[in-house]
Amino acid sequence: MAAPESDASKRQNYRLKIAYHGKPYHGWQRQPGKVTVQAELEAAAEALYGEPVAMAASGRTDTGVHALGQVVSFQAPAKHGPLTIRQALNAKLDATIRVLEARRAPGDFHARFSATGKTYCYRILNAAVEDPFRLDVRWFVPRPLDVSAMRRAARHLVGEHDFASFASNPGYARETTVRHVRWLRLARRGDEITLRVHADGFLYKMVRNLAGTLVKVGSGRLAPEELLAIRETRARRAAPPSAPAHGLFLESVQYEGTTPARRFDPAKAAAKRRRAKR
Amino acid sequence: MAAPESDASKRQNYRLKIAYHGKPYHGWQRQPGKVTVQAELEAAAEALYGEPVAMAASGRTDTGVHALGQVVSFQAPAKHGPLTIRQALNAKLDATIRVLEARRAPGDFHARFSATGKTYCYRILNAAVEDPFRLDVRWFVPRPLDVSAMRRAARHLVGEHDFASFASNPGYARETTVRHVRWLRLARRGDEITLRVHADGFLYKMVRNLAGTLVKVGSGRLAPEELLAIRETRARRAAPPSAPAHGLFLESVQYEGTTPARRFDPAKAAAKRRRAKR
Repeated sequence: MAAPESDASKRQNYRLKIAYHGKPYHGWQRQPGKVTVQAELEAAAEALYGEPVAMAASGRTDTGVHALGQVVSFQAPAKHGPLTIRQALNAKLDATIRVLEARRAPGDFHARFSATGKTYCYRILNAAVEDPFRLDVRWFVPRPLDVSAMRRAARHLVGEHDFASFASNPGYARETTVRHVRWLRLARRGDEITLRVHADGFLYKMVRNLAGTLVKVGSGRLAPEELLAIRETRARRAAPPSAPAHGLFLESVQYEGTTPARRFDPAKAAAKRRRAKR
Repeated sequence: MAAPESDASKRQNYRLKIAYHGKPYHGWQRQPGKVTVQAELEAAAEALYGEPVAMAASGRTDTGVHALGQVVSFQAPAKHGPLTIRQALNAKLDATIRVLEARRAPGDFHARFSATGKTYCYRILNAAVEDPFRLDVRWFVPRPLDVSAMRRAARHLVGEHDFASFASNPGYARETTVRHVRWLRLARRGDEITLRVHADGFLYKMVRNLAGTLVKVGSGRLAPEELLAIRETRARRAAPPSAPAHGLFLESVQYEGTTPARRFDPAKAAAKRRRAKR
């Protein structure tokens, strides 16, 4: 580990990219008596700095929801370099949470308020038999799904619309439920179907609600054209139930000047991560 | 579920292909007071048939070792068809064990004694940071590994040799420790290195011992040429320690007239599984 840097009294803003498996956690947000990602990360940071550190994420994730690239920001004494921070936090954290990247950020950077968009993916195992190795990370749907019908339905979900039919939280009543879905892609690869969606922001449980609805279309129990009417009803009861939490991944968060790749190549992403980490 | 077939008094030999996640189990073999794959499978079969059913696997797997294609044989009343057997067992089993395939087998077929070869794979995550999604299914090796050095070393491990240096069980003292490794392949894909090895049979912990030795070569702490001397010493103490159980997968078992593919294409395998299952 690098030696502490000088001028420990100066404070610095930092930005982390973290990944976590959702299963062991009651979501991101700190809650009394619950094991949460925020509580774990803040405890690791407090052990490093010897003082409480408040972590802000790009947004909450629910119990069981995974993250591949959650972004977190925090203020701390300027005494440790980014590599030290990453290594020290990873040394204290359980391996179900990993700091992939740490860097210094401008003073006005805030993981939530500076975000200009987010990308989620929802992963489905579409096979006749469950896979013991993907139980906690895919929604198992044994009924064959028609991906082209799902794509036709998804056309009604792209663009700037009122997504109230796909928002689970009644607290949105006095807030806008208009969001701009910039793109939504569906791909089948082997026995997996992946839904990836990028928007300027998401309503509560919106991706799981979209996934639940699209799977109903894929299994032939809802016509693709009905999506327009469901959307225009602007009432949660109009749309089918949510998809389960364990298929959902917060893939990446976008800030000024970054755009997410529409095509996700796992091998390329892994190679990039490897280059970045060494 | 299909109606029971006629002639329930007749007995039939069956063959299953099963997959399991190794983490929840004390390996394959039934042991008093332990949760094992054999005990779970026999309990599911007893519930289906209303009488005890003895299951024979191609071989034991240790605690934490996974299976993608373990083969199991058993005798039972001829009253259920293969599809019913698969569905009924899967309905009773925890999803960490799945029956992928069930079929009738000739009366003399035995999962262990009829086997002519086995294929294992050992999977390594070779990256600077652990991955929360592969904790139980890859050996995490942060030190960069030189795969071509590992391949040069592996040449000494292919062919018919005495593999006593790679056998952990002292009980082999009075049995032959000669095995025929038909091929051994190493491939890097993204941040993963996979060792696949096919032989007529394996000694106790042999694949984990080979993997531990090859990783020592890959990290530069052992020269590829030293493998010949280690092999010829014919003593376990000559070789480096075992690789951990959780990176090991029993991939497939070969019987008369079948040969395993040297190249494993996950997408192709998944498509094949999908066709087979529907």
